[in-house]
Amino acid sequence: MPNPTAAMLVIGDEILSGRTRDANMYHLAGELTKVGIDLKEVRVVSDDAAAIIAAVTALSGAYDEVFTSGGIGPTHDDITADCVAQAFGRGIDIRDDARTLLSDHWNARGVEITEARLRMARIPEGATLIDNPVSIAPGFTVENVHVMAGVPSVFEAMVASTLPKLTGGQPLLSQSLRIDRGEGEIAGPLRKLAEEYTDLSIGSYPYQRDGVYGANIVIRGTDGARISEAMTRLAALFPA
Amino acid sequence: MPNPTAAMLVIGDEILSGRTRDANMYHLAGELTKVGIDLKEVRVVSDDAAAIIAAVTALSGAYDEVFTSGGIGPTHDDITADCVAQAFGRGIDIRDDARTLLSDHWNARGVEITEARLRMARIPEGATLIDNPVSIAPGFTVENVHVMAGVPSVFEAMVASTLPKLTGGQPLLSQSLRIDRGEGEIAGPLRKLAEEYTDLSIGSYPYQRDGVYGANIVIRGTDGARISEAMTRLAALFPA
Repeated sequence: MPNPTAAMLVIGDEILSGRTRDANMYHLAGELTKVGIDLKEVRVVSDDAAAIIAAVTALSGAYDEVFTSGGIGPTHDDITADCVAQAFGRGIDIRDDARTLLSDHWNARGVEITEARLRMARIPEGATLIDNPVSIAPGFTVENVHVMAGVPSVFEAMVASTLPKLTGGQPLLSQSLRIDRGEGEIAGPLRKLAEEYTDLSIGSYPYQRDGVYGANIVIRGTDGARISEAMTRLAALFPA
Repeated sequence: MPNPTAAMLVIGDEILSGRTRDANMYHLAGELTKVGIDLKEVRVVSDDAAAIIAAVTALSGAYDEVFTSGGIGPTHDDITADCVAQAFGRGIDIRDDARTLLSDHWNARGVEITEARLRMARIPEGATLIDNPVSIAPGFTVENVHVMAGVPSVFEAMVASTLPKLTGGQPLLSQSLRIDRGEGEIAGPLRKLAEEYTDLSIGSYPYQRDGVYGANIVIRGTDGARISEAMTRLAALFPA
């Protein structure tokens, strides 16, 4: 059975304007690979309701799981929860269990409960909450969409809360070999090897350092023995 | 007149599998902001022909300019040029000017000209070449799609070759203020300010360091004086 598929939706003007370098994509990609869920697509859109709704609709229809990052805080530019509710035609309001989580946390710290803060308890109808051990304000899952915070430490905690509940597949394994020759020299024999091992994915990632050309060849698949076999063949093709 | 819009398409299994952290998105986002082209969307897809063709078609129809990154080297997994040709219903073949560029470069260095290497001279019909001062193998522009390499140093050189030829708009300016208070406290007054300055985009990016909560407030727009005015108002709302 093929592995489940996934997409990620990153919401944030700060990334599209070049102010912030996204860190969550790299983290999620690595975690999904470990549990055998194949990340097939990532989209980054701005804090714009129409763009978010269109992306949620497209991705949730095309992939088994969708993970969003960003836009669920208390400020006016945090519109992800409302957009996800709208994408699924669901209502959204402050929910008692989320409010209780937050007010207990704030009361214990003498933090005033404001209307803005309570926006973080707005949860689409029928959603399941996602634990946030870092800063309490929960994420949530609606159908196959997992809505998480953009702050990396909170995003990572929410990913850790969510992944154990999902059905994974066979973890994607990989081995890599660095070859200090130009890709043009590697390409011919590598293509033949790739045609022989169609059950594996063989990628070539070129680099140049101090004028020296080379490539890292990465062989990926779910069968470790097959990868080792192909890697042995590869190493023999390009003796150091 | 509104600024031109842009999208980026990153092609690469190595990013979706978590092996590599993308660097080109951050670079392009910053460069586009400087020249007044608004980056509205980024998509990352795998080295899969159907996925690349669908993304090129969707993005080139929706935005003024599209920049792609990755998949134009000599190896079997480099399929971007063929996919872009197919997306626009154009033929693709080795082109004389691209072959001359490459063979001159290789001849001068005693590098053998192989069939694999010559794949890098395959250019869709009617495309314009993009200079590559780093490693010679050119990128190309077809209609509104600019096809560039994935290796960061080459990608950056191709962006530098391409942007001066495009019509930009008003550069997006920004100022930011760090406020050492929780977003829940900032949110109410910030929303009122945002409602008053609808010509500006006001974003709040929370952080927590050593248990201290705060947010960086970023005000963006094309009118520097308006940004300064809003920033003065913001600073007065939250005296240190």
